[in-house]
Amino acid sequence: MNDVVKNKGSGPDRLLQLKARIDKALFDRFSEADLMHLEGPIRYILRAGGKRIRPILTILCCRAVKGRTVDNLEAALAVELLHTFTLVHDDLMDHDDLRRGRPSVHVRWDPATAVLVGDALLALAYDRLGRIRHGDALSVVRLFTRGLGRVCEGQALDKDFENRASVSMEDYIRMIERKTAALIAMSCEIGVVLGRGTDNQRRALGRFGLELGKAFQIQDDILDLWSDSSITGKPVASDFLERKKTYPVVWVWTHGSPDSKRQFLDLWQKTPLGPEDIEAFRILFEETGARQAAEKEIERAFGKASSALGWLKPGPAKGDLQTLVRMIRDRKG
Amino acid sequence: MNDVVKNKGSGPDRLLQLKARIDKALFDRFSEADLMHLEGPIRYILRAGGKRIRPILTILCCRAVKGRTVDNLEAALAVELLHTFTLVHDDLMDHDDLRRGRPSVHVRWDPATAVLVGDALLALAYDRLGRIRHGDALSVVRLFTRGLGRVCEGQALDKDFENRASVSMEDYIRMIERKTAALIAMSCEIGVVLGRGTDNQRRALGRFGLELGKAFQIQDDILDLWSDSSITGKPVASDFLERKKTYPVVWVWTHGSPDSKRQFLDLWQKTPLGPEDIEAFRILFEETGARQAAEKEIERAFGKASSALGWLKPGPAKGDLQTLVRMIRDRKG
Repeated sequence: MNDVVKNKGSGPDRLLQLKARIDKALFDRFSEADLMHLEGPIRYILRAGGKRIRPILTILCCRAVKGRTVDNLEAALAVELLHTFTLVHDDLMDHDDLRRGRPSVHVRWDPATAVLVGDALLALAYDRLGRIRHGDALSVVRLFTRGLGRVCEGQALDKDFENRASVSMEDYIRMIERKTAALIAMSCEIGVVLGRGTDNQRRALGRFGLELGKAFQIQDDILDLWSDSSITGKPVASDFLERKKTYPVVWVWTHGSPDSKRQFLDLWQKTPLGPEDIEAFRILFEETGARQAAEKEIERAFGKASSALGWLKPGPAKGDLQTLVRMIRDRKG
Repeated sequence: MNDVVKNKGSGPDRLLQLKARIDKALFDRFSEADLMHLEGPIRYILRAGGKRIRPILTILCCRAVKGRTVDNLEAALAVELLHTFTLVHDDLMDHDDLRRGRPSVHVRWDPATAVLVGDALLALAYDRLGRIRHGDALSVVRLFTRGLGRVCEGQALDKDFENRASVSMEDYIRMIERKTAALIAMSCEIGVVLGRGTDNQRRALGRFGLELGKAFQIQDDILDLWSDSSITGKPVASDFLERKKTYPVVWVWTHGSPDSKRQFLDLWQKTPLGPEDIEAFRILFEETGARQAAEKEIERAFGKASSALGWLKPGPAKGDLQTLVRMIRDRKG
């Protein structure tokens, strides 16, 4: 029983090899499923690219506990399929019409197809889990299902926040832990379970994933306003225009001076918000310190994630995890 | 390890007791899950009633092979949650605004909530499967996931047929086998697997479920046009107005005389269709023999379902399955 994905070289190259193996398997094994009729849109969304961070984490965390099993690739594919499911359904719910530079599924096809493609991606994900032969498949199914539930809960909170006047920083953190971080933590924990790691190892790598996920989501909040949409593949400020309670919004609301709150509210109450308003918000978030606070929080979460790897002995798996953290930290989209 | 659901009495009473146990467990065990935020709409749709045919089949098929395990209730709940998931997403996709006499989730709340509630119901379903302790849980997960994939594929075909000019009878049968019958067959097969039945038993009860499911769907097609909406809880002719290719539509198209086809097309091309058109279609389907053909097909499928029980020794489980078949056959909504 060997780890099916082998790596040579060092640093980012090793991760790119891993990504290529995941991409290939994602398409090769797709045809094993009995979903002829939805094949077009499913291939479309899977082919849209993506960094494959979550399945890479599953494989690296399996290796980190010295696990070597072909099953980690099955689980990694399941994790990526679950992530892709969230993209398709979230884009539909959030009216995000562009995904990775191309029309979202509900735009390229229609809303009904987006609902079905998301559902079918879940079927494909559990189909992969059902193929796990050597590991504790049922524990993986349980972890995976808990992750699915949390993602639903997180997205429900996120949608609810759109209609709430005020959201506390605790509310916000609880929401992103469920919407984003839980899935990344789960990707790590599944790797540990398949690698037959200890409970302590599972908790430590779960914590690593949770902090990494929080950093990732706050980064996303910042990239929404301050990034180049040709890199992110998403329209500028799409979260913002959907009235998402992102980190800088919550920060101004909970930590801003009375004056900056007033300024914020004056802008926020305008409908619809135009490009000049987005620029005004950028300036407001910079002048009030909201952007800086977000960046500090991101660094803090990355720091906690790295600390959660402290117990790991130096070696290729630890090196790869650290490289991945650096690549995420430096991302522009 | 005892069968957790015990039955006394005879005939329909026994099935009503079973239904009551399923209903109770569906609500009692719901709180074990971590889905606080979606609890309202999830309880709403679960509480809407429903005949609980599928979970009853899981338990009866487990008993039919002399299986006695608490796990059959977990699996039965999973099956009902999967069925409820299909209702919520299908109503959204098909613009069915009434379900069991009450506004559908996407109407009572909004489309985003309907997407999330469906997704969360899947999480709840797999959560139940993850609690199976004594049976072959992973085989059940595999069967369940295959069922989920087929339901997605069937609904995709159904949506696609709305935009197709002609649909053959083979296409129609393939579609309803996936959309409706696969889930009912799966409910039976899971019961056999949990009851540690043989492969032959599984195949036989799977065939029973498949034929029962086909009969059930063609019945639905007929009830859509000829039933009392106060009994079905659905608006009259909702499938029809959505241009669904139901059995009588496909039959006229594939078996009708040139004259009846012409009459059919004249009516079908009108947009929008009003109440007087629906009445005209009813008359057309009766005069051409389409309704009678549907009823013959329903009887044939019920007959095949009953034959598939031929090998079962007389006893309470067989009696209950036969009673259930009779209750479905006689249903008015």
